[in-house]
Order: sequence, then structure tokens, then C-alpha cells
Amino acid sequence: MARKPDYDREALIDAARDLFWQQGWAGTSMKDLERVLKIKPGSFYAAFGSKDALYGLAMDRYARDGSARLDALAAEFGALGALKRQPMVVVSGAGQTRACMLAKTYVEFLGTKNELGAKAAERLSQMESRFAALFAAAQTAGDIAADLDPKLLAQRYQSDLVGLRIMAERADVDATALAQAMADDLDRLR
Amino acid sequence: MARKPDYDREALIDAARDLFWQQGWAGTSMKDLERVLKIKPGSFYAAFGSKDALYGLAMDRYARDGSARLDALAAEFGALGALKRQPMVVVSGAGQTRACMLAKTYVEFLGTKNELGAKAAERLSQMESRFAALFAAAQTAGDIAADLDPKLLAQRYQSDLVGLRIMAERADVDATALAQAMADDLDRLR
Repeated sequence: MARKPDYDREALIDAARDLFWQQGWAGTSMKDLERVLKIKPGSFYAAFGSKDALYGLAMDRYARDGSARLDALAAEFGALGALKRQPMVVVSGAGQTRACMLAKTYVEFLGTKNELGAKAAERLSQMESRFAALFAAAQTAGDIAADLDPKLLAQRYQSDLVGLRIMAERADVDATALAQAMADDLDRLR
Repeated sequence: MARKPDYDREALIDAARDLFWQQGWAGTSMKDLERVLKIKPGSFYAAFGSKDALYGLAMDRYARDGSARLDALAAEFGALGALKRQPMVVVSGAGQTRACMLAKTYVEFLGTKNELGAKAAERLSQMESRFAALFAAAQTAGDIAADLDPKLLAQRYQSDLVGLRIMAERADVDATALAQAMADDLDRLR
């Protein structure tokens, strides 16, 4: 069976990411994947090997895109500006799942030994390091107090973001007000 | 088949809560339940009807206990004192799952139509109302500023708590420092 060209493969991984992100690992059947990716079982296994292997690729894609978005925000608004904009950005995507895919995956596999849970934890740690680097850069720029610990700030920030993004899924929660409150709090670190 | 006496039923629901809390809904098989509850399939269905029905009871139990614990903290330490102690309490249970069972369940069923997801959201809303009542009481007591919105404070607080409890599962996160930072932040509401 001929291998799908790369551009097609990339689009399939994007589609799988969106499906997994929305429905979770257990909630996404092989039938769902075949339907959404418009791919037959034989081609699926030839291209990706297994559902779990594709899930791993989808998470990598998700993390890569999140990281690139943060870079773009930092280039435009500076370190503190990027950290302040991030909460609003992640809850305002129209029609998009608001809960973080890495946190969803991490939670789904808590208490199990599936390697995807460990992979999600690893990607969360990497994202935390990105946040810590931004907090350190904000200190260098004189935008936040120099005596604060960037690592602890980053863990608190990621924790708040994980909570915000889950709460933002609820119809009775004012996600915009929460995101704004989170951004405003960063000004108190000066 | 004789119905189990009530005290036994209560203990079974407690055991099911701990198992579901740790392993999640999809991660808990009927075989797991039969093994941990030491109950045969016939007795299980006679007593609880279905896995989902028991999961619902387990969530009710979890929410009831969480509510009672908060009441006890408020009786001993006052409204603000209870809100300040809660983060440390929920991450310091030895050997206990740290992530909130309601949040775990809510996340597990996001993007699905299982009623347990809606039930988890409802219980989270009820807990949010409890937090709002405590923030209002803290205002009445003069412990936090009177111009803040107790509902928004409660949503932010619950969001932070949900994030904290998920992050606290990670080995590379300083859960105690995070919980302390969250408690300290409440002093800034004066």
C-alpha cells in the first residue's frame, strides 16, 4: 500500500489532534478516527501503527503549536505581555475545546500505567519551563520583582491556567472574567 | 437475594468512591469493582443497578464529605480561615488521590453525553456556591474588601483549586508551595 504523501499525513495528524482533544482517548474509537480522517483501517495502521501512536503524535503537535503561539505572543508583547495575554487567548477560541489537551490527557491516565499519561506530564513540564523562562525574562526587563522564584511562579501560573481552562468549559462560569482576573494578578508581581 | 444491610452498603459506596476517584470511570472495570468491593455480579446489580448508578452515588458521597469538611474548617477557623486552609488540606492527604474527583469526572466526560459529566458539573457548581457563601461571610466579618464580587471570587478560587489539585499529582511540582501561595493570595483581598 502506497504511503500517504507528507502534507496529507500532517493534515491527518491535525484532524486527529482536534478529535482526541475534544473527545479524549477513551472517548475516541477507531471508528471515529476512520470516519473523521477518512482513512481505512489498513491505511491507518500502515501510516500510524496504532491509536496510541497517533495520540502521541497529536499531543506533540498540540504542544508544538502551543509553544509557537506563546513565542509569537512574546515577540509581539514581550515576556510579561505574553503571560498576561495567554489566559484570554486559550479560552476565546471560537468552537474550540477550552480545556488543555495535555491536562485532559494527564487526568485521563492518572492512576493508570499508560505511557501517554507520562508523555502528557512531560509535555506539561516542558511548557512549565517555557513559562519560567518568560517570568525570568520579565524579571530581567524589570517588569516583575527580582526576588520572586521563576519556577514557583511558573508552576502557579500553569496551575491557574489548567484550572481556568477546565472551568471555562462550564456554561455557568464567566471564563472571560476569570481570564482577566488571572492576567490582572500578574501586575501585582511588580 | 437478601439485600445487604445499610452499614455494609455505606462501606461499599465509600470503597467504590476511592476506587473511582483514583482510577476514573473508564479505568474502573466491573472486575475491579467486584474485587475491591468483594461482591458478586448478582449482588452488585441487586444493590446498585449499574456501574454508572454506583458512580453517581460515589460522587454524591465525595461531594457530601467535601462539603462537611469545609463546614468543619469554617466552624473552627472562620470563613476566610477555612478558605485559606482548604488548599493545603486537599493536597496533603497521605496516599490519597489529590486531583478533585468532581473535576476528574467532569474532564473525563467532556465532549460526551454521559449524564455523569452533567452531574459532576452540577456538583462543582454547588461547591462553588459554598465557596461564594464563605467569601460573602468573610466580607461580613470585615476580613476581605466589601466591593469584591463573591461569585467571581468563588469561581476564581475553585478554578485555582482545580488546577492545584491536578498539578499536585505531578512528581516535579511543589504542591505544598503552590497551596501556600494560593492561601497567601487570599490575604491580598483585604
